Amino acid sequence: MNNTTITAICTGHGGAISVLRISGGDTLYILDKIFRPLRKDFSIVNAEANRLYNGFIVDNDGNEIDRVVVTVYLSPHSYTGENVAEISCHASSYIQKEILSLLLKNGAQLAQPGEFTRRAFQNKKMDLSQAEAVADLIASKSKAEHLLAVNQMRGGITLEIKRLRDLLLKFTSLMELELDFSEEDVEFADRTQLKNILIETENYLSRLVSSFKYGNAIKNGIPVAICGEPNAGKSTLLNALLNDERAIVSDIPGTTRDVLEDYLNIDGVTYRLIDTAGIRQTDDRIEKLGIDRAKNAISKAEIVLIVLNPAANIQQQFDEIIPEDFPREKIIAVINKSDIYADTDISSLPQGVSVVKISAKHKTNLDGLFAKISQLSAFDFNQDEVILTNVRHFTIFSEALDAVKRAETALESGLSGEFVSQDIRDALRAFAEITGDEITTDEVLGNIFKNFCIGK
Amino acid sequence: MNNTTITAICTGHGGAISVLRISGGDTLYILDKIFRPLRKDFSIVNAEANRLYNGFIVDNDGNEIDRVVVTVYLSPHSYTGENVAEISCHASSYIQKEILSLLLKNGAQLAQPGEFTRRAFQNKKMDLSQAEAVADLIASKSKAEHLLAVNQMRGGITLEIKRLRDLLLKFTSLMELELDFSEEDVEFADRTQLKNILIETENYLSRLVSSFKYGNAIKNGIPVAICGEPNAGKSTLLNALLNDERAIVSDIPGTTRDVLEDYLNIDGVTYRLIDTAGIRQTDDRIEKLGIDRAKNAISKAEIVLIVLNPAANIQQQFDEIIPEDFPREKIIAVINKSDIYADTDISSLPQGVSVVKISAKHKTNLDGLFAKISQLSAFDFNQDEVILTNVRHFTIFSEALDAVKRAETALESGLSGEFVSQDIRDALRAFAEITGDEITTDEVLGNIFKNFCIGK
Repeated sequence: MNNTTITAICTGHGGAISVLRISGGDTLYILDKIFRPLRKDFSIVNAEANRLYNGFIVDNDGNEIDRVVVTVYLSPHSYTGENVAEISCHASSYIQKEILSLLLKNGAQLAQPGEFTRRAFQNKKMDLSQAEAVADLIASKSKAEHLLAVNQMRGGITLEIKRLRDLLLKFTSLMELELDFSEEDVEFADRTQLKNILIETENYLSRLVSSFKYGNAIKNGIPVAICGEPNAGKSTLLNALLNDERAIVSDIPGTTRDVLEDYLNIDGVTYRLIDTAGIRQTDDRIEKLGIDRAKNAISKAEIVLIVLNPAANIQQQFDEIIPEDFPREKIIAVINKSDIYADTDISSLPQGVSVVKISAKHKTNLDGLFAKISQLSAFDFNQDEVILTNVRHFTIFSEALDAVKRAETALESGLSGEFVSQDIRDALRAFAEITGDEITTDEVLGNIFKNFCIGK
Repeated sequence: MNNTTITAICTGHGGAISVLRISGGDTLYILDKIFRPLRKDFSIVNAEANRLYNGFIVDNDGNEIDRVVVTVYLSPHSYTGENVAEISCHASSYIQKEILSLLLKNGAQLAQPGEFTRRAFQNKKMDLSQAEAVADLIASKSKAEHLLAVNQMRGGITLEIKRLRDLLLKFTSLMELELDFSEEDVEFADRTQLKNILIETENYLSRLVSSFKYGNAIKNGIPVAICGEPNAGKSTLLNALLNDERAIVSDIPGTTRDVLEDYLNIDGVTYRLIDTAGIRQTDDRIEKLGIDRAKNAISKAEIVLIVLNPAANIQQQFDEIIPEDFPREKIIAVINKSDIYADTDISSLPQGVSVVKISAKHKTNLDGLFAKISQLSAFDFNQDEVILTNVRHFTIFSEALDAVKRAETALESGLSGEFVSQDIRDALRAFAEITGDEITTDEVLGNIFKNFCIGK
């Protein structure tokens, strides 16, 4: 399918060793021109699969560029399904550039981002959702993210789609039976049975679609807004949580004007901590902008930490900052300065709000706060269940859900079987887009792989 | 010698794939605890040398962390001389940390910077000067740097030392012959022959020691100072040379107060461009500091580009900026704005100064300037000659040179052979320190390897 042989540097900047990958029909012939094996009587063209070969990369004048180790994988037993070689060299930027340029001079082309994985997909080494999971796997920074990516790479979504397809194919075969005899104006298919299949499909799809909220939070970090009145100690708390001097801390109320963000990992789950400007009445135009942003951050947060100053009126601080309709079970009231004010009366706080007493300055009871954050964000999906993390999948499953709902309505309103079948075919087509089973356009593939790193 | 098994991540940050290296007697046993090969009936403990093994890294609960490729090298045929394995995994920071922590949990120790190469030296896979060249090779950014490192890795310095040793050993054997018979008050050794050996050694050493100036310049970049009166266009020239907006350019004289540095590669040689403050009479205290720094930069430069404004008096500009005793052959007078002032009279410039007419703004004749810089910095060492780049080697060879000179003086002044022999023994001991042939203290080794990256 691909006549070109591609290459790229696969490892990151720095380090001691670096790896270049080559894939395509001419891999071994191109390599032969620049690789001088230690074994004099040997040519890399005759390489066996899964073996290491020691030697030198030499330029066209025979100058040694580096002593390297070459590994060879033969088609179809390779990542891309093509002949693949990897050159392991010293991680000097000069050496890397030199070897890359020698490969290009001798007939290889520079790989596009994700092109190796795209070839793996095109050569049926993996389906499209698995290929997409490769990028997620590489980007994963927390245990939770990693689990989701591994599950998807193993074909978790592919299995779900198989189940959904089976349901809908059963549905269409029943419907077609009816359509075949439609001239005779007879309803063959049992409409209750048909309806039950659609309801089962809809439940299934609803669960998947709603899982995206969690999947997305895991991938991008669960948003946790830290809010409070000016000088309540929000920035000190953020620094204590991050064990870092991220935010500028001062005694002057209103120091934090921007929304600062940073990431925190608790028990393998990533949280996106959002430090907000102190909320108060002010005439300062720039401070007002900061307060608007703070309110916006609160409304979008999954968890809100409201830092309360026990020296002032607790209830008043709470009411000024938290919108009346904000779900109480997402709020943690953090009573700061508990080293000084040990017996703060919290009875005025609304029902459902969690309370944790800490001292941000002395870093006391941060563990209690961590535990409460974990508890509030624990979601009730089973670890083995598939959770959507990919916007493309979410969009397609949402469309399929709409199509199934349309089919249900059509069925209920007694519309002709042809209308119902059309909706179901839409849903089936949507699934094929996820796995890439139907011909996927270059544009779709381009969009998917452009966000990969080069070298994968 | 080493009972521990060490491990480290060897690749840089980012990228698509990442490599962890393990070295030591327990390599395969530690790996066996966390590696589940695809071939069910196989254990990595029975690995053959120079082969790839596909499988999964699994944690103690059997959870798959990543699908990986493991390569195995068996002692003594490995980089360190010990059993070595490399795990090639996806370059996710989570996966890397997880695999590293599993290796540590199962008995490996985190490698110190350069520890793999230190073991290679200790297991006699390379001598000390070659081990040092590994770090230079990885750090090399230009063709010239790379050539020097490759030459040193191939044992260039080791060969030179062998020649020097042979000379001095010949000398000492002749001397000892004399000493054996010293009781009889007879001069056996031909003092002219002895002197000739020392002169040959001294010439040899002098060449090596003086090569360091070039080696160091190649390694750290040949310093090129850009100087001139305020607003002559120094910063515009720097930007044009670097094709970048590195320096802040404005029409206000005195914009550049600090000394800015950047690197430029011409024909494989790295130059360190130093943009200096405009030199003029000023009462501004901060500007005065800048001018002092500029003068200092000029005095240390290998090449000075003096940017001259053809609209003002050329000779006066030159005389104000260039110290009277600065070697003329190191100076390039860059006549700027040559698009406006085509026929600038340059006859007032001193003999020996090179002249290049350019327009920094329009980037005209920059190639001419590049060629002139190359020409002025071309040094007359043969490419096959050894050039010192390492401060440690420079210091030791300088000490050896002093010892040989002392021996010459002693010989000439008719001192007893014992004094002469002592000096020669000092020189021989110095050489052994370079190759590490004599027992090298942990402190010396520690200093050498601490500047390596981890993973090498």
